[in-house]
Amino acid sequence: MAGSDRSQAPAAGAGAPAVILVEPQLGENIGMVARAMLNCGLKDLRLVAPREPWPNAKAVAAASGADPVLAAARLYPTTAAAIADLARVYATTARERDMTKPVVSPRAAAAAMRGFGAGCGLLFGKESRGLDNDDIALADAILAIPLNPGFSSLNLAMAVLLTGYEWWLAGSAAADSVLRMPPETRPATKAELAGLFEHLEAELDACGFLRVAHQRPTMVRNLRNLFGRANMTEQEVRTFRGIIACLVTGGPRRRPPATTTGEAGQP
Amino acid sequence: MAGSDRSQAPAAGAGAPAVILVEPQLGENIGMVARAMLNCGLKDLRLVAPREPWPNAKAVAAASGADPVLAAARLYPTTAAAIADLARVYATTARERDMTKPVVSPRAAAAAMRGFGAGCGLLFGKESRGLDNDDIALADAILAIPLNPGFSSLNLAMAVLLTGYEWWLAGSAAADSVLRMPPETRPATKAELAGLFEHLEAELDACGFLRVAHQRPTMVRNLRNLFGRANMTEQEVRTFRGIIACLVTGGPRRRPPATTTGEAGQP
Repeated sequence: MAGSDRSQAPAAGAGAPAVILVEPQLGENIGMVARAMLNCGLKDLRLVAPREPWPNAKAVAAASGADPVLAAARLYPTTAAAIADLARVYATTARERDMTKPVVSPRAAAAAMRGFGAGCGLLFGKESRGLDNDDIALADAILAIPLNPGFSSLNLAMAVLLTGYEWWLAGSAAADSVLRMPPETRPATKAELAGLFEHLEAELDACGFLRVAHQRPTMVRNLRNLFGRANMTEQEVRTFRGIIACLVTGGPRRRPPATTTGEAGQP
Repeated sequence: MAGSDRSQAPAAGAGAPAVILVEPQLGENIGMVARAMLNCGLKDLRLVAPREPWPNAKAVAAASGADPVLAAARLYPTTAAAIADLARVYATTARERDMTKPVVSPRAAAAAMRGFGAGCGLLFGKESRGLDNDDIALADAILAIPLNPGFSSLNLAMAVLLTGYEWWLAGSAAADSVLRMPPETRPATKAELAGLFEHLEAELDACGFLRVAHQRPTMVRNLRNLFGRANMTEQEVRTFRGIIACLVTGGPRRRPPATTTGEAGQP
């Protein structure tokens, strides 16, 4: 299954970095790491001397379906062996280290790894105290996750997720903001919006809402601005014109003319 | 401890969004959410009808020291009550929804929330199936986390971490998308918006616009959704309630009752 999954991997997952866990202590955490990896399109999991026997049932339970990552995981006796085939390795660490090495953010590392292509790896230390200095010395750079300095205790899988997330985003051209709408409608055209504005303003002139002449241009502009921000669909424009007509005429259940309730202030 | 922690919060944590968990199922997950929140400087946790009793020992164990967040957590009976004091709410969802609403990435939402300042919130649904459509309808926008479409099952705390991480990072970067508004006004609260909705719907009931009973819930939701997208200010809510009252009563220049012009289609 890992093989077929790998062959069907989207292009965005090509050249994904390896995740190397050095002496992980708990199977659950390895499973959660696998899940976070697959969330981000990462599939190459390497374990250096895990404390519990491998394979591990608790890891499978915690992986929530990311079994292919666990099934393809490889074991190594040392960190050096685990990264032997890699060309660019980042050591993830929270604590300050007395070592002269470049320190980069997950975002900067992601951009660099995308540029580098295949052969990158991310080193993560054991849950209790992170990476040894000897492991860090094997890496090309330190990857530091910039979070709340007052509470930086980050779960192992969380650290993997943040670095993987940045790697995934660095390769996707996803728009930051799109308007999703049902397929049976479409955005209103400017002409349709203008028709709505003219309809509303005619009724507001008729009922006296825009009676103060010198305020009228500002009020009209503010109203158009309000509706403009809503990114209305063509269906919504029609609905709203129906609402205006219904409110004005009283519709089929016309009630007797009422007085202003006073609950609604006018500008 | 929550109090002293809050008073010593770094400036970067000011105006942090609230995290609202709707019907969370497991105490462990609430604890992991609290830990992820504090990693990112978020402290305002709100629980809507959690399945397990509260306070919850499993939550404390899973929080790994983020106890102040749990101690300060507040319980609410409904999502509407939990967000009543907020002005800008994002609904986090993975599945496609048949709803016209802006969809933004965590990065875009973070920039917008930094520009918006206080009064923002992030809605997360239950672990098993996320948010109901009725909850999403209460939000201003959908927040979609762009990860591997082939494996998008994301742990609740992981989703909170990614949105919080982007919010934290956005505090050190220049926001490139903010909502600008005149200094004399402010964003409408959800309670003020609810007042507008109830006013409009009462008038639409009276004039017969919502007379088809089986269509009423959908029409009401779509209307609320439309106004929700407009990011209305408090001033605009008052203006719009004035417009409704004026259209219904005819205002000072009351004209004779008219028939529907026919130019406005009804849905």
